[in-house]
Amino acid sequence: MGKLNFQDPVPADIEIAQSVTPTPITEIAKQLNISPADFESHGTTKAKVKLSVLDSLKDDPNGNYVVVAGITPTPLGEGKSTTTVGVCQALGAYLDKKVVTCIRQPSQGPTFGIKGGAAGGGYSQVIPMEEMNLHLTGDIHAITAANNLLAAAIDARMFHENTQSDAALFNRLCPAGKGGARSFAPVMHKRLKKLGITETDPDKLSTEERSKFARLDIDPETITWRRVLDTNDRFLRTITVGQAATEKGMTRTTGFDITVSSEIMAVLALTTSLPDMRERLGNMVIGNSKAGEPVTADDLGMGGALVVLMRDALNPTLMQTLEETPVLVHAGPFANIAHGNSSIVADQIGLKLVGPDGFVVTEAGFGADIGMEKFMNIKCRYSGLTPNCAVIVATVRALKMHGGGPPVTAGKPLDQTYRSENAELVKAGCCNLARHIANARAYGVPVVVAINKFATDTPAELDAVRTAALDAGAFDAVVCWHHARGGEGAKDLGEAVIKACQQPTQFEFLYPLDISIKEKIETIAKETYGAASVEYLPQAEKQIELYTRMGFAGLPICMAKTQYSFSADASAKGAPSGFVLPIRDVRASVGAGFLIPLVGDMMMMPGLPTRPCFYDIDIDPVSGRIVGLS
Amino acid sequence: MGKLNFQDPVPADIEIAQSVTPTPITEIAKQLNISPADFESHGTTKAKVKLSVLDSLKDDPNGNYVVVAGITPTPLGEGKSTTTVGVCQALGAYLDKKVVTCIRQPSQGPTFGIKGGAAGGGYSQVIPMEEMNLHLTGDIHAITAANNLLAAAIDARMFHENTQSDAALFNRLCPAGKGGARSFAPVMHKRLKKLGITETDPDKLSTEERSKFARLDIDPETITWRRVLDTNDRFLRTITVGQAATEKGMTRTTGFDITVSSEIMAVLALTTSLPDMRERLGNMVIGNSKAGEPVTADDLGMGGALVVLMRDALNPTLMQTLEETPVLVHAGPFANIAHGNSSIVADQIGLKLVGPDGFVVTEAGFGADIGMEKFMNIKCRYSGLTPNCAVIVATVRALKMHGGGPPVTAGKPLDQTYRSENAELVKAGCCNLARHIANARAYGVPVVVAINKFATDTPAELDAVRTAALDAGAFDAVVCWHHARGGEGAKDLGEAVIKACQQPTQFEFLYPLDISIKEKIETIAKETYGAASVEYLPQAEKQIELYTRMGFAGLPICMAKTQYSFSADASAKGAPSGFVLPIRDVRASVGAGFLIPLVGDMMMMPGLPTRPCFYDIDIDPVSGRIVGLS
Repeated sequence: MGKLNFQDPVPADIEIAQSVTPTPITEIAKQLNISPADFESHGTTKAKVKLSVLDSLKDDPNGNYVVVAGITPTPLGEGKSTTTVGVCQALGAYLDKKVVTCIRQPSQGPTFGIKGGAAGGGYSQVIPMEEMNLHLTGDIHAITAANNLLAAAIDARMFHENTQSDAALFNRLCPAGKGGARSFAPVMHKRLKKLGITETDPDKLSTEERSKFARLDIDPETITWRRVLDTNDRFLRTITVGQAATEKGMTRTTGFDITVSSEIMAVLALTTSLPDMRERLGNMVIGNSKAGEPVTADDLGMGGALVVLMRDALNPTLMQTLEETPVLVHAGPFANIAHGNSSIVADQIGLKLVGPDGFVVTEAGFGADIGMEKFMNIKCRYSGLTPNCAVIVATVRALKMHGGGPPVTAGKPLDQTYRSENAELVKAGCCNLARHIANARAYGVPVVVAINKFATDTPAELDAVRTAALDAGAFDAVVCWHHARGGEGAKDLGEAVIKACQQPTQFEFLYPLDISIKEKIETIAKETYGAASVEYLPQAEKQIELYTRMGFAGLPICMAKTQYSFSADASAKGAPSGFVLPIRDVRASVGAGFLIPLVGDMMMMPGLPTRPCFYDIDIDPVSGRIVGLS
Repeated sequence: MGKLNFQDPVPADIEIAQSVTPTPITEIAKQLNISPADFESHGTTKAKVKLSVLDSLKDDPNGNYVVVAGITPTPLGEGKSTTTVGVCQALGAYLDKKVVTCIRQPSQGPTFGIKGGAAGGGYSQVIPMEEMNLHLTGDIHAITAANNLLAAAIDARMFHENTQSDAALFNRLCPAGKGGARSFAPVMHKRLKKLGITETDPDKLSTEERSKFARLDIDPETITWRRVLDTNDRFLRTITVGQAATEKGMTRTTGFDITVSSEIMAVLALTTSLPDMRERLGNMVIGNSKAGEPVTADDLGMGGALVVLMRDALNPTLMQTLEETPVLVHAGPFANIAHGNSSIVADQIGLKLVGPDGFVVTEAGFGADIGMEKFMNIKCRYSGLTPNCAVIVATVRALKMHGGGPPVTAGKPLDQTYRSENAELVKAGCCNLARHIANARAYGVPVVVAINKFATDTPAELDAVRTAALDAGAFDAVVCWHHARGGEGAKDLGEAVIKACQQPTQFEFLYPLDISIKEKIETIAKETYGAASVEYLPQAEKQIELYTRMGFAGLPICMAKTQYSFSADASAKGAPSGFVLPIRDVRASVGAGFLIPLVGDMMMMPGLPTRPCFYDIDIDPVSGRIVGLS
């Protein structure tokens, strides 16, 4: 406690991060009573915690479960991650609570683009921040490998089907073994079952059954599976593949997305065990056959290989904050195309490890209308866990913007409005905060507003936020300054969270699963966003009809909408209502387990600016330390 | 010693590998007296050994240095890796020697294609073989990330140069800092120096200097830098990028290679320190400017970011054999487009750790005409190390092929010739072995021939090989059966290696660096391959002229030739001579430090067959173990 040597102004994140010597990760594990058999060190500052840790704890009570969400942010971000880390530093280092922070693994690509890393900031960080932002323990690399193996298998399979007879295909898929007899590989039984073929001796299949089995007959126009890289490579957004002579003219237009948008990332975040992950990976739908039937990874014989590639990634990575409190870093699905929350297994492990008096604090990506809604209706639905308290992070800056302040743009100087007192503008913007509070309360949990204080905020402005929050039904609203003072700056917030968690909860989902796809979409649009109605474009209608016919209508909904407004129009600040929410298209992540209505264009592959931040990144030749990472 | 429970016939590799419980890697490190500060465990079976281990040992004598190469192989491979591992098991577990095996990291892509993994085989393996073949400690993933960040930066830079004025570009590259003043990032000074600009205040550059600095003016036609994935994805061999509307029509034809063919892999294998790696990465040439000048990674501001991504990959991974002897797995450059040898730093570390009475055994990829030639003339030149002994692995099977036996094809049944005695055919084929022996002896080192015995080989056939080897000047030639019996089966080989290492050596390179590019190529072609002359195609002439003008003529040569014949024609078995060696093109890996004459078409991206081996790979739901990996 109190080990941080605060400086004013707050130095660069990497300077603060490197100024603290991390405690050996074995010590952090010991604090949590993780037995040596249940974790594997990866160097001295990271460890993989095995899911086996749950075996001996499965009958123990869970700790308190806290989700951190945010108001509709400016493009600069309002400090959700920093608050998540900061309140944990307060709980663990100042308030004598057992605590585990559960946080997403940052995407490495943007680290070299505009954005820099994502391990919190200032005196509220996960360390070593270099490890957090680069490679970590390889989970995202494993996803890249798995995602792209499946992509390669799709194109290769279409190639082989196009160049071979049904009989040749079948004979190659079921070759004679050493004794001359042939058999189906175990993964093939899933396809046989799907096709209604009960015969299990390859030699006894009829010619027609052989054809049905061997020919996936993928319709190239329906392929939704794309390749991924954890690199900001805009020139890969749309590409044509198969242009070498060896591919015999079978070109196809496709593209690469950034790895964290892979469905495999969403699977990792939502799975609850290795066998469950095996099933989800095998069930992922990559497109349709020409007859309109979904084609899965297991149809391609690939679920097993995918789970093998993902086996180690299933174990969360243990790290620590600047104030020695434990952190589980695990999974980092996009908050638009996916649900934007860290993994279920990390939360489950954390809740057992902290015990009934302890706290697990986890973050929901994007504004609360996206991240928290998905936390509640997707993540909690699959985990069976329910939160004891929701924290909503608000800033005076963002509320001024919602009150009518000029646009805030990344990379441009902040308008004077945001640097001088204007409590009226803040009050006007609190309609945004109020709606997020009401939305959160609808799940039956107490809401604590964390007012993330910046140096230029004045008491009158901060008071305005606090008053508005309490008026809107927040259990409490407290000012915090953990960026400048670490856990000490979030003590009040920590105390409020502790009290909130003592309140009774009456958790309920926003919607049941057994209503139609459109009913679910409309519930979210009206009750969470404030829309008057929903409009479906023809492509969306077509997909809803298709997914309903395929039997996927019972999945929860993962809206792909901008986080910069409750509506589809990013410039509509405050708390817009009465608008029509357009649904342009609907996609499905069947393995992960949700349907994705697309409200707007989603950018799945960021680019590099003229002067990317990699210009500043290097190794200091004297110390061997990494410099310039932000 | 003697812990292996041999079975006949030899079970599948993964069954043998999983039947042995690995010794904790901390114990293996202790055996080698590696201090805890000098290694980092990654789980219980892998550790990263830091280069700092050399600091305290730098004045200690080296151990004996043994390179394992092979005769011209069949497509099935003649067991070089298995022999490398087997002889180490013999030296360490049966002959009481300190030993370190230095071996390449296998490419993960082919593990899911046709080939299966590469950790030795039978009772001579590196374990855990699943770890060896999948992810390992992430080095190849780091190369993928670094390679593709550079690729993304190339296209993004061309895009920004095409859409901005010189002044706008310059202002973005050198923006004003917080105080309003602007400065060059440290990496930019390298470019300023290259351009002959001595002024270091951005504001004082002339308009012309600003343009020269800001505009790399890359000629898209000259770009040699391609993207990579560690996945067998044939549809990425040739692609068109930049087809999204956001890229404004700036499409370009390029492609992906498999990651191990990246120049960054070659840099990793040839570097000797972190600062050296930083320089090599920054010096990599990605193409030319329209004025014909080489454009480097540092011109793009990227050397620092690349070395940061590669920092942890610089540390070799410590593993173990089935018989508890230590292994350093590090780097795995292609043997065609690159030099096909594991890393210099792993060998250097191994040689210090085993001490003067110990042994480091390292493998040279491909046939000895490729792998050993490059080991001697590229790797040893950059490391300053010289071998005490060369082992050449021969099989009766391959020698029969060289003697005129029918073709050997992977995936097809072996002709009866290879399964019944024919000592005359073996004798006829020994011309291939004899030339490899002569080639090795020309470096001034004793040669031990390892006759890797298969179950169908007869005493007369084995004798024929041994006699031919000794006649050709081998120091010794011994039969070994380590695939079936581990170290016990390679005891005789181990003893021969020990004796050979007691012989004096008179190492000399095949060619000096200060002769012309053509003279170097011709020396290799005539003296190693037996060619009568070399023919240069116009593209090769052009590149030789270009690289000479650019000042790269002093680099060593890395021939890209088939390993299936001494000549360019893979079907010319035995010891062909008098042929003309065609050089079609010449490429340069300036950062790694070699020129690459292309003798034939090199396949840089493998594909997936109709039934890839991933069909058999899965997790056993009961044991949680990986099954089906071969």
